[in-house]
Amino acid sequence: MRQTYIAGVGMTPFGKFPDERLGTLGAAAALRALADAGISPKDVEVLSCGSARSGVLQGRESGVGQLIGWEVGIEGVPVFNEKAYCASGTVAFNVAFTAVLSGQFDVALAVGVEQMSRRNGKGAPLTSDGMELEGDIGFSPAVYYALAAQRHMAEYGTTREQIASVAVKNRAFAAHNPVAQYRAPITVADVLASKPVVGPLNLLDCCPTGDGAAAAVIVSDAGARRLGITPTVRVRASVVGSGVYSTQAAASLSSFELDVRTARRAYEMASLGPQDVDVAEVHDSFSIAEIIHYEDLGFCERGQGGKFVESGQSSLGGRLPVSTSGGLLTRGHPLGATGLAQLVELADQLRGRCGPRQVEGASIALAQISGGFHLGSFASSGVTILEGSGR
Amino acid sequence: MRQTYIAGVGMTPFGKFPDERLGTLGAAAALRALADAGISPKDVEVLSCGSARSGVLQGRESGVGQLIGWEVGIEGVPVFNEKAYCASGTVAFNVAFTAVLSGQFDVALAVGVEQMSRRNGKGAPLTSDGMELEGDIGFSPAVYYALAAQRHMAEYGTTREQIASVAVKNRAFAAHNPVAQYRAPITVADVLASKPVVGPLNLLDCCPTGDGAAAAVIVSDAGARRLGITPTVRVRASVVGSGVYSTQAAASLSSFELDVRTARRAYEMASLGPQDVDVAEVHDSFSIAEIIHYEDLGFCERGQGGKFVESGQSSLGGRLPVSTSGGLLTRGHPLGATGLAQLVELADQLRGRCGPRQVEGASIALAQISGGFHLGSFASSGVTILEGSGR
Repeated sequence: MRQTYIAGVGMTPFGKFPDERLGTLGAAAALRALADAGISPKDVEVLSCGSARSGVLQGRESGVGQLIGWEVGIEGVPVFNEKAYCASGTVAFNVAFTAVLSGQFDVALAVGVEQMSRRNGKGAPLTSDGMELEGDIGFSPAVYYALAAQRHMAEYGTTREQIASVAVKNRAFAAHNPVAQYRAPITVADVLASKPVVGPLNLLDCCPTGDGAAAAVIVSDAGARRLGITPTVRVRASVVGSGVYSTQAAASLSSFELDVRTARRAYEMASLGPQDVDVAEVHDSFSIAEIIHYEDLGFCERGQGGKFVESGQSSLGGRLPVSTSGGLLTRGHPLGATGLAQLVELADQLRGRCGPRQVEGASIALAQISGGFHLGSFASSGVTILEGSGR
Repeated sequence: MRQTYIAGVGMTPFGKFPDERLGTLGAAAALRALADAGISPKDVEVLSCGSARSGVLQGRESGVGQLIGWEVGIEGVPVFNEKAYCASGTVAFNVAFTAVLSGQFDVALAVGVEQMSRRNGKGAPLTSDGMELEGDIGFSPAVYYALAAQRHMAEYGTTREQIASVAVKNRAFAAHNPVAQYRAPITVADVLASKPVVGPLNLLDCCPTGDGAAAAVIVSDAGARRLGITPTVRVRASVVGSGVYSTQAAASLSSFELDVRTARRAYEMASLGPQDVDVAEVHDSFSIAEIIHYEDLGFCERGQGGKFVESGQSSLGGRLPVSTSGGLLTRGHPLGATGLAQLVELADQLRGRCGPRQVEGASIALAQISGGFHLGSFASSGVTILEGSGR
């Protein structure tokens, strides 16, 4: 198999930017990634773009990648537009990775973008894609995760305070991440006192909506040589998966089977295991989710996720710092951008560029994302494993 | 480079099926393709789905592939959802092809689906994606192609009757294709007497909207061995491209530069030229388009497209029969399904399965598609070249 590398990353701040446009947000991230890689738009041979809801929100269902390409000055190359719910950015990265892996291309650009603060037309409140019926009867992602929290508490004795401590930890990380959406420190008491959403989850247990974009440049060895660059972040695995619906009757609410399987395939592809991971970004769309991801990814034993965060093992200086960017909870979650924002953080961690939130000596990094619901399972999932060298 | 094959194809009839659902349409095509390949849903390792407007029309922007997978019984595998305007099905095929080419997978299923007769909510009339502004000021695809027709007539002396004869030829083919949407024979006089749309194009010069799905199974040599099948249709090239907007000032309306470039790359990938092509499906969304495609693909000299069709060279028994399925004009054009429907026809041609519309001895087949508009250029384009063997 060809070796592939992340040669550069870049992102916009995440926040509410209703006056921006999809193309300008995506272009800003893309240009930063290209500058970080030290290459020009003309070097890009294939462009892959992830956005989850640009059609419903902004009336542009195809062609977000073309729009970004035009703003940046990337023309004439294959452009892919990926729609995979919250995992859209990760799937866009996987498509770019696979294009390079196939030997057809040596330099690929993956961009994720979303703008949730601006909508053309009125539209209904945003539920997960294709869940209009479920939304009408009250099932929303928050409800799903609230049930997961209740179940995890009942099965494993996970405490409300442990769940809240995920949000506290991630906000502490965000204080040191200038592109994060919410950076003011919070306490467990703040989380517990915040507005109830779906019991036991309160407002500070839930990620915000937002706008933003993130991007990564992927190159092969041949591409790096031709461009005269020396990338130091190797892609050890990029795996995406979809749900197994027929087993839903046996599904557990306190573990996400799809993520377990996707992670297993990624560890196999990388010839690595959870014990090798030094830093991770996970899909902490709700505080409870991060606790379950610890367990599903093998960072700790089943049922021990609450203690893992409470004891500081996922904080800076702990065994495996998680969501050092601030995560979805505090960096923010503009759907299609998130998967690539995770890789921006990890590439920076592996290159020692994270300042006060830097995980010293980080060499192996893992990103995990979940997207969409279908018949009680996640519909899409992605795990990426990166290795840093040369530090 | 790995060799890849189309092991099976299948499609639904194209027409107006407002009572169907995206999932059932896509599943019907997928199951036919799997049956044609002689394999089971459980053999599929990756699923790629193209649909252009499922978000705007049916409120399902991500996850059409997951929905089809669930209906068919394909679960747990990577699923990609491609949005590339009218080229969505072709791009989905390219993503599946690239996944196999990369060596990660040996068996891929590509599905294209669209349902234009059913819309959730009211919505505005459907223009090309992201062209709401242009639509408001009266620019629609029909206007673009009408201008192209006027220009082609002025530059090359192409006659109105030559343009109409494309629609007549394609309807003659459709009479022998049971899945085509419009099968009653028409004459040049019928085309000229049909309702004016945008001068010089009349109703019978324009493809209909419609619903339907089409699918293809792609395998590697290793996959074919493991499955115990002997595919006879080899993929010689699968190339997609996007527009070059900066040259728009120099753009010609009587040639589509993006298609020229995409075709050039495809011929290079296949180590073949236009003289090798025995049968073709092109993006005849409007009658004039097919004439321009003849020229852009190198089937005839520049400006000679009108004579090419008039003289029967693209009819059965001619030098290079084109749109033997009936084409978009008469088989119909459910956007995301069309690219794969083209490959269904060509795989059947290469296997001698087309009955009265069979091109005898066809060995090399080419499909061409155009999608979307951006700044006066097409936004997406695809050319696929297949080779038959073992007949």
